[in-house]
Amino acid sequence: MSTDAAGLPGAVLVVGTGLLGASVGLALRARGVDVLLADPSPTAQALARDLGAGRLAVDDGPVDVVVVAAPPDVVAHVVADALARHPAAVVTDVASVKAGPLQALRRDGCDLRRYVGGHPLAGRERSGAVAARADLFAGRPWVLTPTPETSPDAVRVVTAVVTALGATVTVMDAAEHDEAVAVVSHVPQVAASLVAARLREVPEQAVALAGQGVRDVTRIAASDPALWTQILAGNAPAVVRTLREVHRDLAQLLQALESLTAPDVAAPGARGAIAALVAHGNEGRARIPGKHGSAPTSYAHVTVLVPDSPGELARLLHDVGEADVNLEDLRIEHSLGQPVGLAEVAVVPAAEQRLVEALRERGWNVQA
Amino acid sequence: MSTDAAGLPGAVLVVGTGLLGASVGLALRARGVDVLLADPSPTAQALARDLGAGRLAVDDGPVDVVVVAAPPDVVAHVVADALARHPAAVVTDVASVKAGPLQALRRDGCDLRRYVGGHPLAGRERSGAVAARADLFAGRPWVLTPTPETSPDAVRVVTAVVTALGATVTVMDAAEHDEAVAVVSHVPQVAASLVAARLREVPEQAVALAGQGVRDVTRIAASDPALWTQILAGNAPAVVRTLREVHRDLAQLLQALESLTAPDVAAPGARGAIAALVAHGNEGRARIPGKHGSAPTSYAHVTVLVPDSPGELARLLHDVGEADVNLEDLRIEHSLGQPVGLAEVAVVPAAEQRLVEALRERGWNVQA
Repeated sequence: MSTDAAGLPGAVLVVGTGLLGASVGLALRARGVDVLLADPSPTAQALARDLGAGRLAVDDGPVDVVVVAAPPDVVAHVVADALARHPAAVVTDVASVKAGPLQALRRDGCDLRRYVGGHPLAGRERSGAVAARADLFAGRPWVLTPTPETSPDAVRVVTAVVTALGATVTVMDAAEHDEAVAVVSHVPQVAASLVAARLREVPEQAVALAGQGVRDVTRIAASDPALWTQILAGNAPAVVRTLREVHRDLAQLLQALESLTAPDVAAPGARGAIAALVAHGNEGRARIPGKHGSAPTSYAHVTVLVPDSPGELARLLHDVGEADVNLEDLRIEHSLGQPVGLAEVAVVPAAEQRLVEALRERGWNVQA
Repeated sequence: MSTDAAGLPGAVLVVGTGLLGASVGLALRARGVDVLLADPSPTAQALARDLGAGRLAVDDGPVDVVVVAAPPDVVAHVVADALARHPAAVVTDVASVKAGPLQALRRDGCDLRRYVGGHPLAGRERSGAVAARADLFAGRPWVLTPTPETSPDAVRVVTAVVTALGATVTVMDAAEHDEAVAVVSHVPQVAASLVAARLREVPEQAVALAGQGVRDVTRIAASDPALWTQILAGNAPAVVRTLREVHRDLAQLLQALESLTAPDVAAPGARGAIAALVAHGNEGRARIPGKHGSAPTSYAHVTVLVPDSPGELARLLHDVGEADVNLEDLRIEHSLGQPVGLAEVAVVPAAEQRLVEALRERGWNVQA
């Protein structure tokens, strides 16, 4: 295999030129790699070429690496095909489920020494090559799932490619990966959809009471049903394992709440069961890492009333910068029926008092 | 009853001087209303006085309105007491559940002509009078739940008080209120806790993959177990009704996913059932109103890479303002292991192209 000083391959074939495939092409072109593009749709293939993601692959000429960016339900077939057509190439993919496709490849007797499963945790609301960006993967985790058969050289070259895309490599086995994304991605998606589905038939007056809590919980419920059907079906075993635990916890909570609906009936343990669920949620939530993968930090939150007109939020953040305070996070809260917003500025606790004073001096209405 | 030109009462007694009670006091004092403060804790009462929320109530002297700001599990008792001690006063409360306390008052033969239930949809992560702010209710919905017995004068004076606090009045009956908050607040809280609880025991590597989706879904899972036990127990009948529907939908999804885990078994309808749940979530999510209670709008989202140093976000928003584009929403996305953030700027679609060009001209890395 030909690689350059950074370990990057000389020629990469991208199979599937949607959002992820075209973004891979754009980023590798920017690093000087020769990128060949293939897609079952000639239109999609030509579009990615026109956008600068690479040149058209016209035959099965030699390539060093094949990146399969096909939908989860066909990925195993496309990977098997690439391993057969390019017997000297390392093949990787970007599908969001890993154990099922690997099982299929193993069953079909594919050469697993040259296969490294991959999954970039990146995406956008939009799809297709037109939404592609060379920096789509910048700063994102990218899981690689080598098998015991996978050769160290194959892992090395795929790691070089992923690193060149700006992503951060995490190595897991396929089953670990699927369990992890079930908990941190697929089950949250299901929960958001379940809660949002309850909003379908409530009166207008009720949805008008929606605050930031339900907005946050249901934001990802706006996702594409077709895509999520593929993802959930493709990771069914791991999703089922976690959803069964959720189902059990929910049944216990229901039982506790039902025992409280009979008035004047003692319901020993009911309140304890409710409190335990919320406390378990506290513990789980506290494990989510903070910014840039660092340990979770308790930030101080400074809330500021911001008039809803152009430039006001900029003026606020300018004043935050003038106070020489680094903004760790920012959340805009929407008010009902009032031409004013609440900006919640997160800063390290040591900076809170200084920031509050600086903003008040500059005339801001601060709810410290 | 003595009221001023704005219909505001001359003297208001606030019973319970925690976050909500003290905030009511501060806001009414700012409007020149005589506020008397009472709390079972002499320390809490004196603290609210020292913070400027009113003067100490020393006897059962005449007042026009009593605002009961006691925890949900004692609110009925405190309201009944206030109705008895102040036979000429209108009594309201701020508890987040309404049907249970009303039932108790009716059972005890209280004078419901002078009682107007209330619930401000406002709050903070912090509690106690020290966290109180005169503008805590600015721009927030405040539900009033008058009964058929409640006199129009009583509704009028409580509406004047709530309006003076800057909140927006919504009138519902107590049962409607409890059903509404079960769907838009209590069930989302349960879902967030259920999902977050699953994060407790997964490997560190798995939580490191957490993206914005699971962060949003579980944000409110950091809430106080004691408070939420009171709220969920107090609204058990309505929460049970909605949670039973969630439980049923989850059971159907589990069945569909389980039928897919047996390989090579036809699972007719399984994918359809998964897609239907996600599609129902789409529909429910689309009903949540946009900014300031207006109809939901589809904003265009412009994503910009922002270096993680003081002043950079301010510079970005300054440049957005210079482009004369009004920012409708802003979300900061955290990256794993990279000193760069992604700012997602929401603007009306008509302004998108103009904004992208203006930001690129100013040197920003824009992912339009």
